[in-house]
Amino acid sequence: MAFAPAVAWAQTTTEEVVHSVWIATCAGLVLMMQPGFALLESGFCRAKNAVNVIMKNFTDCAIASLAYWAVGFGLMFGVSWNGVVGISEFFPGGQGTSLVNVLYQTFFAATAATIISGAVAERIRFVPYLIGSGLMVCVIYPLYGAWVWGGTAENPGWLRAMGFLDTAGGSAVHVIGGFTALGALVVLGPRLGRFSRTGEVREIPGHNLPLAALGAFLLWVGWLGFNGGAADADFKDLGIIVLNTHLGAAAGIVGAMLTLGIHRRPLLMSAVLNGALGGLVAITAGAKYMDPGFAVLTSLIGGAIAVVGPAVLQRMKIDDVVDAVSVHGFCGLWGTIATGLFARDHLFDPSRIGVQTLGALVAAAWAFGMGWLVYKLLHLTIGVRASTEHEQRGLDYTEHYEIGYGEFMAARTHRDLGGEA
Amino acid sequence: MAFAPAVAWAQTTTEEVVHSVWIATCAGLVLMMQPGFALLESGFCRAKNAVNVIMKNFTDCAIASLAYWAVGFGLMFGVSWNGVVGISEFFPGGQGTSLVNVLYQTFFAATAATIISGAVAERIRFVPYLIGSGLMVCVIYPLYGAWVWGGTAENPGWLRAMGFLDTAGGSAVHVIGGFTALGALVVLGPRLGRFSRTGEVREIPGHNLPLAALGAFLLWVGWLGFNGGAADADFKDLGIIVLNTHLGAAAGIVGAMLTLGIHRRPLLMSAVLNGALGGLVAITAGAKYMDPGFAVLTSLIGGAIAVVGPAVLQRMKIDDVVDAVSVHGFCGLWGTIATGLFARDHLFDPSRIGVQTLGALVAAAWAFGMGWLVYKLLHLTIGVRASTEHEQRGLDYTEHYEIGYGEFMAARTHRDLGGEA
Amino acid sequence: MAFAPAVAWAQTTTEEVVHSVWIATCAGLVLMMQPGFALLESGFCRAKNAVNVIMKNFTDCAIASLAYWAVGFGLMFGVSWNGVVGISEFFPGGQGTSLVNVLYQTFFAATAATIISGAVAERIRFVPYLIGSGLMVCVIYPLYGAWVWGGTAENPGWLRAMGFLDTAGGSAVHVIGGFTALGALVVLGPRLGRFSRTGEVREIPGHNLPLAALGAFLLWVGWLGFNGGAADADFKDLGIIVLNTHLGAAAGIVGAMLTLGIHRRPLLMSAVLNGALGGLVAITAGAKYMDPGFAVLTSLIGGAIAVVGPAVLQRMKIDDVVDAVSVHGFCGLWGTIATGLFARDHLFDPSRIGVQTLGALVAAAWAFGMGWLVYKLLHLTIGVRASTEHEQRGLDYTEHYEIGYGEFMAARTHRDLGGEA
Repeated sequence: MAFAPAVAWAQTTTEEVVHSVWIATCAGLVLMMQPGFALLESGFCRAKNAVNVIMKNFTDCAIASLAYWAVGFGLMFGVSWNGVVGISEFFPGGQGTSLVNVLYQTFFAATAATIISGAVAERIRFVPYLIGSGLMVCVIYPLYGAWVWGGTAENPGWLRAMGFLDTAGGSAVHVIGGFTALGALVVLGPRLGRFSRTGEVREIPGHNLPLAALGAFLLWVGWLGFNGGAADADFKDLGIIVLNTHLGAAAGIVGAMLTLGIHRRPLLMSAVLNGALGGLVAITAGAKYMDPGFAVLTSLIGGAIAVVGPAVLQRMKIDDVVDAVSVHGFCGLWGTIATGLFARDHLFDPSRIGVQTLGALVAAAWAFGMGWLVYKLLHLTIGVRASTEHEQRGLDYTEHYEIGYGEFMAARTHRDLGGEA
Repeated sequence: MAFAPAVAWAQTTTEEVVHSVWIATCAGLVLMMQPGFALLESGFCRAKNAVNVIMKNFTDCAIASLAYWAVGFGLMFGVSWNGVVGISEFFPGGQGTSLVNVLYQTFFAATAATIISGAVAERIRFVPYLIGSGLMVCVIYPLYGAWVWGGTAENPGWLRAMGFLDTAGGSAVHVIGGFTALGALVVLGPRLGRFSRTGEVREIPGHNLPLAALGAFLLWVGWLGFNGGAADADFKDLGIIVLNTHLGAAAGIVGAMLTLGIHRRPLLMSAVLNGALGGLVAITAGAKYMDPGFAVLTSLIGGAIAVVGPAVLQRMKIDDVVDAVSVHGFCGLWGTIATGLFARDHLFDPSRIGVQTLGALVAAAWAFGMGWLVYKLLHLTIGVRASTEHEQRGLDYTEHYEIGYGEFMAARTHRDLGGEA
Repeated sequence: MAFAPAVAWAQTTTEEVVHSVWIATCAGLVLMMQPGFALLESGFCRAKNAVNVIMKNFTDCAIASLAYWAVGFGLMFGVSWNGVVGISEFFPGGQGTSLVNVLYQTFFAATAATIISGAVAERIRFVPYLIGSGLMVCVIYPLYGAWVWGGTAENPGWLRAMGFLDTAGGSAVHVIGGFTALGALVVLGPRLGRFSRTGEVREIPGHNLPLAALGAFLLWVGWLGFNGGAADADFKDLGIIVLNTHLGAAAGIVGAMLTLGIHRRPLLMSAVLNGALGGLVAITAGAKYMDPGFAVLTSLIGGAIAVVGPAVLQRMKIDDVVDAVSVHGFCGLWGTIATGLFARDHLFDPSRIGVQTLGALVAAAWAFGMGWLVYKLLHLTIGVRASTEHEQRGLDYTEHYEIGYGEFMAARTHRDLGGEA
């Protein structure tokens, strides 16, 4: 702990050390995305579920981290078995800088898992949700990850072998997260009262929009590390990645505002926050490969998708509390394909467009199918949906015996909890 | 994305790579200042404007970032035309570590722009505010920046040529931001009811002080990167910069508390938060040049100015919602001049004091004049001030059709929005 | 400020520069723990004390930082006098990378100081609390620190000389902070109404659990830098430290949930948040020395202690508002001893277990005794306890003349403050 004297590293490892330090820094930034998701989702829910949705974010980070460290990392980055799945590197330990990468990857897995919590909020039961998170990071996420990033140059994952490009998880994290959520939503059904008997959509406003905005800001900050950690070891592309990432958020905001303006809809903050996230998701696949002008264009469209997508889903009676399917799934799909369209030195190259489209669709299909299957099995066994009474009462009280803002909520509730002002 | 093997950089670029990594880290920290400002300002407003002020912070970051990347950066750091303005480097792209600096500089511009939002909160219209932000980062900020930091050693900006010192924007960001805000305030006028007909000042307390405090904490954290990124490339002064920055915040707090105590005023948290920020602003110009003892003295006075300044402005019937003019403008002025007084090896050197005072006054005059002009033109064309009805009702509802805490606010409002508890 | 050209460092200092950059990064992360504590503690308090507890966190960071920079650092890391106390390095200044370490160490001291604020919240007076913080960082913390980390290899602190291990302050920060808090609590007594006349414990729920959860998340993020900065200068153990830290938080959550489940208690978010922190505290001593499997085990038990500890203290009529004694004191004790049990290559080595147990008990005894003494002296001189009237009314109003959420709290209060909605 005492301040280190100048130790001479072996000269050959300077590169390794600096890279590890940067990845550790990025890990710190990426972890900031966990409160980012938690606050965004909690703020967009009703006060009676404010605690429950944060609990899901807080605890799925724990479950996902332990499970991914134990099993998922090895399945994703272990020695590749036929380009399909890794079969080594379970329970990684020992010393050396490579463990920094294990941590950074663990945060990616935790991010993929937590995307779902917002979509299914306000009516899913706690325990099946956590089981779903565990299966996410042990099966759904690492297998697709093994295809895209797994193996080595000599023995790569099968999509990697085809030249599929994904800087930091536009497909592997966001399409996978978003479409797993869609599968879960189909099983779970909408919240009580979300759609009227005549099919009308009823808005359910969030209870704390400043909290949601803080969540979006934290996600924005964390994304610099999320994408920035994917810089090549020579750091030549560090600048373009972080610049594109930030401009992507900015363009997403503008895209969302323009889309709202064109549709003559009010300038909702909730839509604009999602526009920023849609822009960030859209540039996550191509951040390393695009010039800034195309990055801005890609994220401008991402912001528009984040605004338009929810209307499409609502028509299908899908109730996505925070619009995670649109923001992560749809914008991730678009960004993965856009990487084929706009990759530097390969603009509009049909073969690249084909590979990117294939990889994106595989991600969507795999995640949707597996998400549906996992939640269907949970539904058929322990049940995924909270009882009507619990949903009406709010999951904070029924699942945790604790409410978010005791002194500011109904007296009855508060007395029930034995509190005093 | 797969973890990088040890790539051997060209040996000559180790310095460059490490510097880029540090600047990217600082960029992540500086971005944290955006939620910092947003929460500080929102918390100090009334609940009916909680969303609107965050929206201004969220969207001006987008507009300012895109505009600065496109135009402002080139005007500030392009090849200097007669020490007045840069004329190259627009729409920077390509690869290489220098783009990291473009991002870091973009965050500086976004910070300068967003300083204004708190001062003018609760009665400015949304669209003219965004236009003002765009002009800030395309004209007001980059031109002064070009004078202070622009050009090269051979062909420098004119203030730089005179030996003017500013570590990280005590003048270029904070004086410019604070005095532009003052110019805007003169045009805009005070909030309804802020001053009684008999000239009495009426306090309008913030609606969420814990949120405001979180904002101040995030600004404090972000400031380490804001100033820290200005370390010279040999990193010899990294330690003194970050230590002075932190001690500056601490001394600002003490300065504010002492000032409140001397005036026998209550120990308001709002004043103490501003004291910390005043201390941080005050040390921003001199962080690299002062020894810690003088840094503490400078920021102690900065904390006092942050407490005393608002009273002066109130006497002039200027209504600065978050006291941004005092915290950024006045403390920035003081800190820039203090750099002339207390610079290491040049203590109380009259010629330095002269140059620093000149640079500080130029910043104040330029920013005040341009701020007044920009907002006056906006006032005469599209109008800057919300209607009385909108101001009374709150801008959240009238501009965004969304309110901050639907379940905790008046039933009428909530029903209007179609929400349900 | 202009972007640095590639300066060639003296080759021998590459290691030094990279290490400084990493420590500066960690400092930024550790500073995030200050809002972390502030929000956790404020959220767990009643609304009427929301401002006061944040003020304590905000201002103790200032007092502690200035005092530690001036005096504490030298006592802890100056040339060691007989292994007991440092006697040089007061008011450190000048240039060079070592000042980065001064800042990082300052944040450790500020963390130790602020642990106390949550325990004693809602009834301690403001000024004696700040005096206590000053004495914490000038006496209690740096002396124990001098024993564990002070001196040099040739002339070490006395516990360091015995081979006592503490990666990043499991004993030096957390046991010291937690047991100082216990000493203060014994003097201070419980809040009004916390224990009924018949000895029953009455729950006093927190007023803003989402805020508390955000605090826990920020602590989690900051802890990566808190422990990560303790990596050896060759960075070989950086990976294991940050991985163990994160898995520690995760395991603490699981440990808390299992413990709640076994006791058939509801799955309280407040308990689970403390479980994460207990896991983090538990692994802070051993992060560098344990393999991940043992780290998980250590923190699993830490999470359980965080849940069980408060019940033990309540039986003794100790009223710890945020359970800081359990989370920091008890889990720190356990983690320090566990480092003796599970250190790599020395599993269950009796002599190591003995040294670790000795060091942990010395920390607990020293801190408890000094905490009791300092607060007893304050009690006998200026008084530490707020008056009954003030405590009932809430310290926000009585000490700061400001309340947290003016528009959402009782009309009487709000009118008193002259506010308007």
